Amino acid sequence: MTATAPAQIEQAMRHALSLAAHGPAWGVNPQVGCVLLTADGTVLAEGWHRGAGTAHAEVDALSKLSPGEAVGATAVVTLEPCNHTGRTDPCSEALLAAGVSEVYYSVADPGARSGGGGERLREGGVAVHGGLLAEETERAMRVWLTAERGRRPYVSVKWASSLDGRAAASDGSSQWITGTAARQRVHEQRETADAIVVGTGTVLADDPSLTARGDAGELMPHQPVPVIIGERSIPEDARLFQHPGPVILTASRDLPAILDALFERDIRHVYVEGGPTLASAFVAAGLVDEYLIYLAPTLLGGAKLALGDLGVPTLSGAHALHIESIEQLGDDLLITAYPKAPTLPHHDRER
Amino acid sequence: MTATAPAQIEQAMRHALSLAAHGPAWGVNPQVGCVLLTADGTVLAEGWHRGAGTAHAEVDALSKLSPGEAVGATAVVTLEPCNHTGRTDPCSEALLAAGVSEVYYSVADPGARSGGGGERLREGGVAVHGGLLAEETERAMRVWLTAERGRRPYVSVKWASSLDGRAAASDGSSQWITGTAARQRVHEQRETADAIVVGTGTVLADDPSLTARGDAGELMPHQPVPVIIGERSIPEDARLFQHPGPVILTASRDLPAILDALFERDIRHVYVEGGPTLASAFVAAGLVDEYLIYLAPTLLGGAKLALGDLGVPTLSGAHALHIESIEQLGDDLLITAYPKAPTLPHHDRER
Repeated sequence: MTATAPAQIEQAMRHALSLAAHGPAWGVNPQVGCVLLTADGTVLAEGWHRGAGTAHAEVDALSKLSPGEAVGATAVVTLEPCNHTGRTDPCSEALLAAGVSEVYYSVADPGARSGGGGERLREGGVAVHGGLLAEETERAMRVWLTAERGRRPYVSVKWASSLDGRAAASDGSSQWITGTAARQRVHEQRETADAIVVGTGTVLADDPSLTARGDAGELMPHQPVPVIIGERSIPEDARLFQHPGPVILTASRDLPAILDALFERDIRHVYVEGGPTLASAFVAAGLVDEYLIYLAPTLLGGAKLALGDLGVPTLSGAHALHIESIEQLGDDLLITAYPKAPTLPHHDRER
Repeated sequence: MTATAPAQIEQAMRHALSLAAHGPAWGVNPQVGCVLLTADGTVLAEGWHRGAGTAHAEVDALSKLSPGEAVGATAVVTLEPCNHTGRTDPCSEALLAAGVSEVYYSVADPGARSGGGGERLREGGVAVHGGLLAEETERAMRVWLTAERGRRPYVSVKWASSLDGRAAASDGSSQWITGTAARQRVHEQRETADAIVVGTGTVLADDPSLTARGDAGELMPHQPVPVIIGERSIPEDARLFQHPGPVILTASRDLPAILDALFERDIRHVYVEGGPTLASAFVAAGLVDEYLIYLAPTLLGGAKLALGDLGVPTLSGAHALHIESIEQLGDDLLITAYPKAPTLPHHDRER
């Protein structure tokens, strides 16, 4: 279902991708962008999705046109138009009703209920082409697509260590291994997630507030839900209880079951912050979709390791990663990496 | 003693630096380049030093001229001309005898006996300017200058680990954590050193040949001396005994004394390859001038750490590094770093 397209269609798709990025990175709905073109390639309107409950990108673009103006138009949209009546009507029907005659989309909607929009449009006589710039869109929508396909939240695991893999010095001191630029990036990454996951050990050791904050300590507009895993009890005056939203506590250590429950609560992206025991458990279970490894230019030695045992008996069983990028943040490095063998879909069940 | 110089002098110094790099990186003598210019800036001759016992750069350049041709010339040389009669005569006297009237050099000769050439030339009526492009030259001559100033070998410590700081999996398997490009770089780095230093544990575990080899396994032209530290006895059939040169064995664990002894044997650059106990001892003692940290894109967990204890009780006592470069070698990373606080000169004694 890949398609070659004239340069103006490809240009419109690139623009649609940049429009998509205006939408929120978190939540159950994807970032989607749409550009409407006349038959000769002139831009008629553009739109993007602003989050659950608001108009989808196609409908947002159509809303800017007068009745009849989209007749014979071409819609260029990053995700296959949905075929599902949820809080909004199906985009496939909206495009048909508007008289659009051709649709280019990049990536198919993996949803069992929302998918199939391309087929519905074809039945309605529209020329439909999927797969345009699919690699770029897969990259941009990695979090949402992974969660939708696997029916569990996308798991980012972050840790900060010295170059020799220590998270703290021998006396436990760890604040701050990394500098301000790296710590600010952590807050930005928190904001893009639906939940921050930590173990009770980290809460007891560091008393973190588990909020996403700006340079001046102010709360960012979106706050992920704190999720605390572990049996140990947390004092009532712990900072995390001042969190502006609800806090989820679970004594379970069954990570797949916890991820299931979080998915059911509309959480699509969890940001696992530690400590070492919890991070190691996610790695050992093969549940990590993205590694965010902050390396400070120091050597610490000693026993306070950022990761503990991972159940790797021999070198050939190592968790092999693909390094996606290396960034210098102040004096620190941020290595973003993915598992070389993609994590398996957690479930095949239907929505 | 810094000097501003016309653009043609600075250009000649850059050229002299590139000539210097033709000389061998190892051995007791530095890489030095020299360019001779007429008074109006035309290049008369160039030279570089090819290693101990051969002509110094200035004499190499002068040797290309007819008698009298250098009268009134300007010599541009990366290191202060030597003032010392060793296996060759002093360059200061050679430049005076040739009638050179102006000398630009970049970095002063730190040697108690070889230094002072600039002063001798001034006494002889030559206009002498030091410090031109000193930063570039300090960088290029870092190994030799550090060894000369500290009166001990420059210490490079190399290790290879997973991103979580492990040198091997739980069963001890470590061949190969890194890929071929990284391992080939190690051989190239070995060749630039005067000695490879390992502990007896590494010899017993890996039976390394401790040679610098090319892509096809062939021996490189220069072979550093293997130095084995530790009390455990090594089997007679160990591969390192097939080394083409002599092998140094020491049961001492007194690293400063070992470095002293190696310096006395004309070793100016040691490449410490491990294992973890030896590397940690060098780090903990503050004896490392250069860190060469190979990071493989894997996670191993477990107890086989690339570095053990470093005697760092609390975070403020961490060994802080300055990251000089990050290179991607195949799938692996090579981080080259220096200690943030320079290592102290080991001795102040005279040669």
